Amino acid sequence: MDREVRAEILTIGTELLLGQTIDTNAAYIGEQLAAAGIEVYWKSTVGDHDARIREALRVALSRSEVVITTGGLGPTEDDLTCRAIAAELDRPLILDQAVLESIRRRFTERAVAMSPNNERQAMIPEAAAVLPNPHGTAPGFVIRLGNGRMVAAVPGVPSEMRPMLNEQVIPRVCEAFGVKTRIRSRILKACGITESALDETISDLVRLSRNPTIGVLAYPGEIHIRLTVKTEREAEGDRLLDDLEHTIRKRLSQFLFGRDEERLEEVVGRLFLDAKATVAVAESCTGGLVCHRLTNLPGSSAYFVRGEVVYSNAAKERLLGVPHELIAEHGAVSRPVALAMAAGMRQTAGTDLALGITGIAGPGGGTTTKPVGLTYIALASDDGVTCREYRFLADRDTNKLLASQRALDILRRHLLSHQHAGQN
Amino acid sequence: MDREVRAEILTIGTELLLGQTIDTNAAYIGEQLAAAGIEVYWKSTVGDHDARIREALRVALSRSEVVITTGGLGPTEDDLTCRAIAAELDRPLILDQAVLESIRRRFTERAVAMSPNNERQAMIPEAAAVLPNPHGTAPGFVIRLGNGRMVAAVPGVPSEMRPMLNEQVIPRVCEAFGVKTRIRSRILKACGITESALDETISDLVRLSRNPTIGVLAYPGEIHIRLTVKTEREAEGDRLLDDLEHTIRKRLSQFLFGRDEERLEEVVGRLFLDAKATVAVAESCTGGLVCHRLTNLPGSSAYFVRGEVVYSNAAKERLLGVPHELIAEHGAVSRPVALAMAAGMRQTAGTDLALGITGIAGPGGGTTTKPVGLTYIALASDDGVTCREYRFLADRDTNKLLASQRALDILRRHLLSHQHAGQN
Repeated sequence: MDREVRAEILTIGTELLLGQTIDTNAAYIGEQLAAAGIEVYWKSTVGDHDARIREALRVALSRSEVVITTGGLGPTEDDLTCRAIAAELDRPLILDQAVLESIRRRFTERAVAMSPNNERQAMIPEAAAVLPNPHGTAPGFVIRLGNGRMVAAVPGVPSEMRPMLNEQVIPRVCEAFGVKTRIRSRILKACGITESALDETISDLVRLSRNPTIGVLAYPGEIHIRLTVKTEREAEGDRLLDDLEHTIRKRLSQFLFGRDEERLEEVVGRLFLDAKATVAVAESCTGGLVCHRLTNLPGSSAYFVRGEVVYSNAAKERLLGVPHELIAEHGAVSRPVALAMAAGMRQTAGTDLALGITGIAGPGGGTTTKPVGLTYIALASDDGVTCREYRFLADRDTNKLLASQRALDILRRHLLSHQHAGQN
Repeated sequence: MDREVRAEILTIGTELLLGQTIDTNAAYIGEQLAAAGIEVYWKSTVGDHDARIREALRVALSRSEVVITTGGLGPTEDDLTCRAIAAELDRPLILDQAVLESIRRRFTERAVAMSPNNERQAMIPEAAAVLPNPHGTAPGFVIRLGNGRMVAAVPGVPSEMRPMLNEQVIPRVCEAFGVKTRIRSRILKACGITESALDETISDLVRLSRNPTIGVLAYPGEIHIRLTVKTEREAEGDRLLDDLEHTIRKRLSQFLFGRDEERLEEVVGRLFLDAKATVAVAESCTGGLVCHRLTNLPGSSAYFVRGEVVYSNAAKERLLGVPHELIAEHGAVSRPVALAMAAGMRQTAGTDLALGITGIAGPGGGTTTKPVGLTYIALASDDGVTCREYRFLADRDTNKLLASQRALDILRRHLLSHQHAGQN
């Protein structure tokens, strides 16, 4: 069995506290550690400040076996990490000749004069193992403490940090702590269902599942269900994930549209390619977003034929053949107009499917009977024309996004149901 | 003088530790606090785990006057923040009738059934001040402790968190601690110029400016110049920012398109409204993105008349009147076709301006003479039709974005030059 090992991530840099830089390093390190089977329970950030770096290190070592710091190893005055770690662990800094040579060589190769500051980067805490940095001047280091704990310091520049972490730090941690387990994650993505309805459908699984565990995260227009499994053998992890996914799929069925990095538009695009079907889009309130998303995929010209962004009533009448009286009687944002837009678009573009979308994205244009967010999405196909009504409650940008999400989902559902019909 | 106030940010969510979500909230909160003159020395992240949320809160309250938590306020089983804070501060959770009513109302408005889980979101720690959430169901809250410290909890969904932080949390912190020094930032946004050319133009200012300081950050298709000033009086800060902005404007002139949160499409939209001009867009490789961006603005129907997303040659011929021979001779991605698209679009839509965009977004479809990224953008106006050629070198998504950025900038430049002509 593995010895218990918890790692803690400490990112160092005042720009991270001020929000001038978004901390992507912490996310990357967390992801790599998780994949290697090393638990991460804590992540902290401090600025370029000696006493606070030391305090953060002290707190981290009090509760975690491994502390990985990133940032503050550069040559400038405000790079304090190395000095702070040395002081906190009570180890003197010693000039490492091999590191000094490699820094000198780097400057010579580039025909750049080396500044005295760069020599500081060769000062390493006593008895630390140096981690060479082929991508920059700042080396990293690992210190093993008497109580079995470990401190690793890596640079903050992502292109230098990433290979050092993966090739040098994680292997050392796994070896030192005999880590054999692997943690694997899988994300199932759902749309067309509210977070609380989804939660009610699977809350017993969320509560009772221990391995894999289940986490639920909501985004505008979609919900992600994250399964995380911890096993020694990858095949066993895959099997446990497959089993749980199967259970969840049985309950959520067609609400699930994809996995992991898959975007809704990719899933829809693949279904179009499989079905050899084509589509055209007439959109008003979404203003081009549905076309944009459908054409984000390489090769989308195989199924996407044409889009009309029709803002004016005149354009709806002239380009899509929506009868003038229909708009006069029901208003441009109405079920009959959405139906006529989809039917007109399908006829003029000669596609298998066509969407007609009309609504009020806001913030202006709403009335008591037709509030901001009211949206009609119609689909024309061989089966005829159908339309659904939605009421979105967000701001303009999000209303456009939510409507585009529903529109893509309508295409997905249609293509899926006909795929199944064909297989019967 | 200000009372010393240090704020600490605590972000909660296992997905943040695992690196599945990048913690943009912490950066945003840090930025807003810094702008309000509130120091942030620490930032921590813990997973959805009761004991660790409590420990993190305990550590934070031992060294900071204000603790702001984000995340874990949702309706699901793994949303533990509210319960953990209540337990750590030894305050019972009490059902808040007003919150319950507002949650109920939200569901009624959307005609969606409320699940019992959502009721949990109305359980608030005793004697907490509730922070209403107009953008979602989870309210936030602020608790003032006997020792003068303060705990604020806000949701993790950025669109809900941001207004709550700025409109409710920060004003309460500033009032409670009498914060007066203000750090103010202003961002000047440039496009149509490379980072190194821009750097050469203002590098002396970047090096020598102390208050305000200047930072330069490049994004796809635009560059942000951030001016940051620290003063006690807002008027003095504004004056210093105005002076420096004036100097920079003289050097960069029309390369600067906007300020702070302004997006290029907003600037273009405003210019259209001022000029009472209209526009139509015929786009191929950008696939609807230019229409989408032009219609992201409230009131855009005043200038945006129509868009055609024409992927097929047939659509270019039939809808825009591009001569068949032109496509046969030069190919769909060519200067003559872009010119014909813009001219055809302007004629059929009857607008003041029209764009014609054709290119190869990639990753497929490139040849040695017409590589991926080759893009032609034509503008038709009363002055005639002009066209520019670009070669973008990024991936499909970014190539679409870069092309849309250039297209909007072409509209901006045209409208600006005619605005000035009219004023002469």
